[in-house]
Amino acid sequence: MKLWRSTTRSICLQVALVILIGTIVDAAAESGLCESTGSDGICKGGARETLFVDGAKLQEQIDELAGFSDTPAPTVTRILYTPNDVAARRYVKTLMSEAGLSVREDAIGNIFGRWEGSDPSLPAVGSGSHTDAIPYAGKYDGVLGVLGAIEAIRALQRVNFQPKRAIEAVMFTSEEPTRFGFGCLGSRAMAKSGEIFDILRASKDANNVSFVEAARSAGYGDVEEKLESSGLGHEVYSAFVELHIEQGPLLEKEGIPIGVVTAIAAPASLKVGFKGDGGHAGALLMPDRNDAGLAGAELALAVEEHVLASGSVDTVGTTGVLEIHPGAVNSVPREARLEIDVRDIDEARRDKVVAGIRASAESIAKKRNVRITNFEVVNQDPPAKSGEKIVEAAKQAAESLGLEYKLMISRAYHDSLFMARITPMGMIFVPCFKGYSHRPDEFASVEDMTKGVQVLALTLSQLSSA
Amino acid sequence: MKLWRSTTRSICLQVALVILIGTIVDAAAESGLCESTGSDGICKGGARETLFVDGAKLQEQIDELAGFSDTPAPTVTRILYTPNDVAARRYVKTLMSEAGLSVREDAIGNIFGRWEGSDPSLPAVGSGSHTDAIPYAGKYDGVLGVLGAIEAIRALQRVNFQPKRAIEAVMFTSEEPTRFGFGCLGSRAMAKSGEIFDILRASKDANNVSFVEAARSAGYGDVEEKLESSGLGHEVYSAFVELHIEQGPLLEKEGIPIGVVTAIAAPASLKVGFKGDGGHAGALLMPDRNDAGLAGAELALAVEEHVLASGSVDTVGTTGVLEIHPGAVNSVPREARLEIDVRDIDEARRDKVVAGIRASAESIAKKRNVRITNFEVVNQDPPAKSGEKIVEAAKQAAESLGLEYKLMISRAYHDSLFMARITPMGMIFVPCFKGYSHRPDEFASVEDMTKGVQVLALTLSQLSSA
Repeated sequence: MKLWRSTTRSICLQVALVILIGTIVDAAAESGLCESTGSDGICKGGARETLFVDGAKLQEQIDELAGFSDTPAPTVTRILYTPNDVAARRYVKTLMSEAGLSVREDAIGNIFGRWEGSDPSLPAVGSGSHTDAIPYAGKYDGVLGVLGAIEAIRALQRVNFQPKRAIEAVMFTSEEPTRFGFGCLGSRAMAKSGEIFDILRASKDANNVSFVEAARSAGYGDVEEKLESSGLGHEVYSAFVELHIEQGPLLEKEGIPIGVVTAIAAPASLKVGFKGDGGHAGALLMPDRNDAGLAGAELALAVEEHVLASGSVDTVGTTGVLEIHPGAVNSVPREARLEIDVRDIDEARRDKVVAGIRASAESIAKKRNVRITNFEVVNQDPPAKSGEKIVEAAKQAAESLGLEYKLMISRAYHDSLFMARITPMGMIFVPCFKGYSHRPDEFASVEDMTKGVQVLALTLSQLSSA
Repeated sequence: MKLWRSTTRSICLQVALVILIGTIVDAAAESGLCESTGSDGICKGGARETLFVDGAKLQEQIDELAGFSDTPAPTVTRILYTPNDVAARRYVKTLMSEAGLSVREDAIGNIFGRWEGSDPSLPAVGSGSHTDAIPYAGKYDGVLGVLGAIEAIRALQRVNFQPKRAIEAVMFTSEEPTRFGFGCLGSRAMAKSGEIFDILRASKDANNVSFVEAARSAGYGDVEEKLESSGLGHEVYSAFVELHIEQGPLLEKEGIPIGVVTAIAAPASLKVGFKGDGGHAGALLMPDRNDAGLAGAELALAVEEHVLASGSVDTVGTTGVLEIHPGAVNSVPREARLEIDVRDIDEARRDKVVAGIRASAESIAKKRNVRITNFEVVNQDPPAKSGEKIVEAAKQAAESLGLEYKLMISRAYHDSLFMARITPMGMIFVPCFKGYSHRPDEFASVEDMTKGVQVLALTLSQLSSA
């Protein structure tokens, strides 16, 4: 039954694609860009030209946006609702307006640039990402997905493509957790995830500035009254597509220009605390110690063991925070505080690792006679599978452009993970240097970004016509 | 030969002790404090009264001194040359004067209260410790040894004891490493240890205040010109005894009131740094990682393994500092910084552990493909054996007072470690609550402290008469 459904669907998609590409090609032909059109309706030879993407302009915009930073180039630091974040928002809204899009912002600063479709009553197709950046990061993470969506729309406009469904370029508020300790604020709000509105109302940053005060200072004056209005229903979007650098090494290593994401890994994060008695590093004999620091060190290594024991390359786990107190060379550590991140595309397999970590924490505490003062599962979001129609559209877009692609998992998580809760979602990856991200030497070539925007444009054209 | 020497010496000591205790007892008898005197010349029954130590007064003084703190009670924070350190110094000098001692200070603020002997030409007997305290510490560490020495002198004065050699109560400058990063400033200077004077001249604190400026601000105006004059020769002291809380759990656990220290463990401290490439906690696959944090965790556990492998309870090792960077839950640690402390009474055994740690650091770095950015041996001081005559005097003092004692190692290090370089040295320990030290709940009972001062007094009386 299911097989039958997916088969018919993919047949429909192929038919749809033919029509769509046809549309573009006809438009292109009118604009004299197409050499010849095959029986399949796909433009031959000049296919690439049928979707001219201005890579040089895109790179200029990325570089200009990188200038809005709290730290000097090549680092980029752009924290939610700070003056540089506000400046970046203004810049994005300007680009949207210049592309003829109608711009609106919601109560927390999610920004939408709408290219109206021939049937405004239909759910729209969304595409976008974020522009905030953690301290001392790079200039491509998120930014490519925002500026790329605008350029993809421009590319479609150049060939006089007319969408049936509206296409919206989206800039999400604060994908990074920097200021308030948890990420994807904008997309969680749009998807009305969990207790997000209560959490936002209660959140304060490290300087005790509340989320509401911070949003007001950035010009979102009615954030408190209208907070819930940033939540969207299932009727708003028919599809959402996010273009992003891979943040991993696979595409570069394999020399493949396009990644089509089939699922976003399910992240879980834990906070663990151990407490012992501490004591003098010289006077306290080894048998009399209950060293919380060593308990923490053992757990960090146990995290790695449990992850490797899963046997799947899709399972990753990291102890990114390991603090010991008092942290003096002549004191036996009295406390250890760990923050652990575990991800997998298979929720059950990830949860098995989390359970293993809990068991290790207990056995380590018992063995070392330390107390577990905290074992908190901060978040344990479900993974998201990409919408089949979006994966198909992206695959066929790449094929029609003669670009090799790879079906892959997104192990980093993105706003699309939350968008998946209100609409079918998909992601398109482009290679980045050594897979580096969240560092100043994060880099993607103009050629690769251009190809990514081309695939995004064709994907949007298809989805907006279905 | 050696056996013969030590035998004759202990015979001499016993004879000496009989005479000494006799002296005290006669004095006590005159002062009507002794019930009866045995053939051995030791006061029976009233023996404890022959050496009345005012424990209540001592406790009052300890509590009053604890008031000079940068942090609220019960914590004590007293940093070198700060107003509270200066106030504590003034208080100690006042107590010395009230005890009729002639007070002098050297160029860096080591304080001496001298009770002149009948033969002022003889080297003196010294006893003391420190009054500085690390942040949020307790009120007994060091303080007992300073105020206890003054009270021991008072106890001897009460029974009209007349020393042949002068007895000096000593307060050392900054035993704790808090302000300038290395400890025992005062005793290192007195022993002219290594390049201490050059080091002091070059030292700056975290606020870039130089040691010389800091000392001047505390009233030591000629510190720079007269720095070297704080160094002493071997002719100044014939013996040095330090009374201290154990800072370990053994005496309390075994219910023994007095510890006679036979050696001070040899401390070594190391700084180690690892560096990897870091990366995104979600995107970077396990096989592609070189996690510096896990390298640090492994080394911390290796320190413990090497220490336990020594097979001796006298070997201790601690990773008191383990910092990882960037320290974000979604980042694979790029750097780890460790500070490691290793101690043993056997220098060769300790150095074997240090060598093992170095080997482990190299193999871990190789296995995890991280770089060792630093492997620094910060200090590697030799251990100190107590002077035999002092151990004997302390043992017999305890015996004569009917107090059980335990021969033990000091695994914490003290100013006596450096005094050992210019005079025979010994230490007397009293039990402290759970062995806690460097924390606000550090505690020693009045009863135990009183017994410790009694033993110190008898030991000083013996050494000052020899």
